Amino acid sequence: MFATEHMFVRWLQRQQARRPMGLHLGIGDDAALVEPRAGRELILTTDLSIEDVHFLPQFHPPRAVGHRALARSLSDVAAMGGIPRFALISLAISRRTTQAWLEEFYAGVFALARRFAVAVVGGDTAIVSGATTVDATVLGEVAKGKAILRSGARPGDQLFVSGRLGLSALGLRSIEQRAERAIRKKGLRDAVRTTGKLNDALQAHFYPEPRCHLGRFLGQKNLASSLIDLSDGLSTDLARLSEASHVGARVWAERIPVPASVTLGGSNHDDALSLALNGGEDYELLFTVPSRKVPQVPREYRGVPLHHIGEIRRAKTILLKLPGGKEVALWPLGYDHFKKLGFAPPGRRTNSR
Amino acid sequence: MFATEHMFVRWLQRQQARRPMGLHLGIGDDAALVEPRAGRELILTTDLSIEDVHFLPQFHPPRAVGHRALARSLSDVAAMGGIPRFALISLAISRRTTQAWLEEFYAGVFALARRFAVAVVGGDTAIVSGATTVDATVLGEVAKGKAILRSGARPGDQLFVSGRLGLSALGLRSIEQRAERAIRKKGLRDAVRTTGKLNDALQAHFYPEPRCHLGRFLGQKNLASSLIDLSDGLSTDLARLSEASHVGARVWAERIPVPASVTLGGSNHDDALSLALNGGEDYELLFTVPSRKVPQVPREYRGVPLHHIGEIRRAKTILLKLPGGKEVALWPLGYDHFKKLGFAPPGRRTNSR
Repeated sequence: MFATEHMFVRWLQRQQARRPMGLHLGIGDDAALVEPRAGRELILTTDLSIEDVHFLPQFHPPRAVGHRALARSLSDVAAMGGIPRFALISLAISRRTTQAWLEEFYAGVFALARRFAVAVVGGDTAIVSGATTVDATVLGEVAKGKAILRSGARPGDQLFVSGRLGLSALGLRSIEQRAERAIRKKGLRDAVRTTGKLNDALQAHFYPEPRCHLGRFLGQKNLASSLIDLSDGLSTDLARLSEASHVGARVWAERIPVPASVTLGGSNHDDALSLALNGGEDYELLFTVPSRKVPQVPREYRGVPLHHIGEIRRAKTILLKLPGGKEVALWPLGYDHFKKLGFAPPGRRTNSR
Repeated sequence: MFATEHMFVRWLQRQQARRPMGLHLGIGDDAALVEPRAGRELILTTDLSIEDVHFLPQFHPPRAVGHRALARSLSDVAAMGGIPRFALISLAISRRTTQAWLEEFYAGVFALARRFAVAVVGGDTAIVSGATTVDATVLGEVAKGKAILRSGARPGDQLFVSGRLGLSALGLRSIEQRAERAIRKKGLRDAVRTTGKLNDALQAHFYPEPRCHLGRFLGQKNLASSLIDLSDGLSTDLARLSEASHVGARVWAERIPVPASVTLGGSNHDDALSLALNGGEDYELLFTVPSRKVPQVPREYRGVPLHHIGEIRRAKTILLKLPGGKEVALWPLGYDHFKKLGFAPPGRRTNSR
């Protein structure tokens, strides 16, 4: 472990060589000083990442823990149509944590921050006897009046989603299966090392890509009437968007970009569909487009495919249209902290809380 | 406990009836949208408050936990000469927490926020099996170029401090003494209730007052060349200010506003001085003033006394001048997370980390 907090702070300061535009004072004083561009609104969001809740220290490499902690907040900024600028990383470090873990964690944070030109300008640190807890706060910008809310979907709007859904949940499943085997074999002691090239599912789970460029494109082109990021699963996040917009939706099962079957092992299409509907942590963007603007939606943006998966309805229920033509209700079965604990039936959750 | 996170979020939304100026979108979407005033720099700061590290659930009333969590970040904004505008409260809630605790916690947060016209615009929530952990992020504003840093003190500048030092540590001591008695008597089970009117020390410990008005006054009047808030004790925070400014200091022991002896019970003046020098969590402001501006420093500002306690020296050591005229080195013996754990000798700590 770093000998003193002073040395830790100095080390942190050295990780970011260049002083980005708009950063007047970074890590080291009572607070950071930044200057946003004139005429912008600011986007503020924060996300917790907690040991044994959001990550398992035995299975998630520290670099992935850092990447995922920041990615969650960057994705929230993308989901407003904005661009991220500054981040604060608060870290309650478990007493069991090593300096190597900490360095790898920050390597994950800084690598992702660098790619999106985000400056890490502060945070707070404490050492605790319990679980390591990260809180990543991001400040973003959006041109005045250009933010895309959850609440703008109107009946007749068409529903789109980016990328491929369910891959992260598939990656998590493969980690859990490995863990079970490891526990059966020798009891759970050491980390289950994930070495070599990651397959698509593990890559999606460990290093999800926040869709900041896409979010900004949708805002700048005035294409999307509403927008949300898929943090807890399509079924749950679509319910949130629909509720905020006071509408319902119809989703065509055949159009949902499920994980390619080859990566599923022996599983069938129903399983893939279930992963895509209810698996969380995809961090893809779900958005609605007014009918007349649908021709302007590209088939892909910067290499990320955009799929037309359904439509918004006036009736406030959400339907899933199956391949045979039958329609069933689509319930929100994605991740929910309260549900997980058996406190309540599937509820809604907002990321800005 | 709230039946669903949805209900919790709705409850939170109802706690703030008015939409403050500059808040375009609060709790409930992917992120918050705010608009700072033109021509301002933004101040960003965040502070952790952790069960069994920063507060003890048996002894700290939940309302005080909420107040203190936000006060720490407001004090950082005051220490830059700015005014706080928006806050995000992230909360990892221990599974043992009751809804009553949560409501009282937020009552403490919202009461303090209201008094300083700060809008709580977001956060994140999770339920954990371990310690309750709060991360309070505050966004403040300061006129361009008017922020007061730690690094501006120059030899010959005069050293001032607001309020009275060591009261919070005295309050903590009385809590600990009560706890010991309670444990001896019946084993530690229930909360040691603090009822009735609080004495000055308990009031200072449970409900510290961030000096936002004073910080802003010092900035607007261009009075202070450097400024820091006393979160970890005068001896430690003066060492930080001195290091950042590449200077030393001389402090006159007689001038330090120690707790009134009557509140100390049987203790003597040395004890009071030690509390004032090394007791943390006072959240008073320590600042330097160029000699020629000293006459402009009022004896008090908005009821808070300002004490002239020393001077800045070129030599990079910090001296304490005792009543007899003898000078001794003043070592940083205030709170330090790493020191507490036996990792290192007293180090420096920065609040923006």
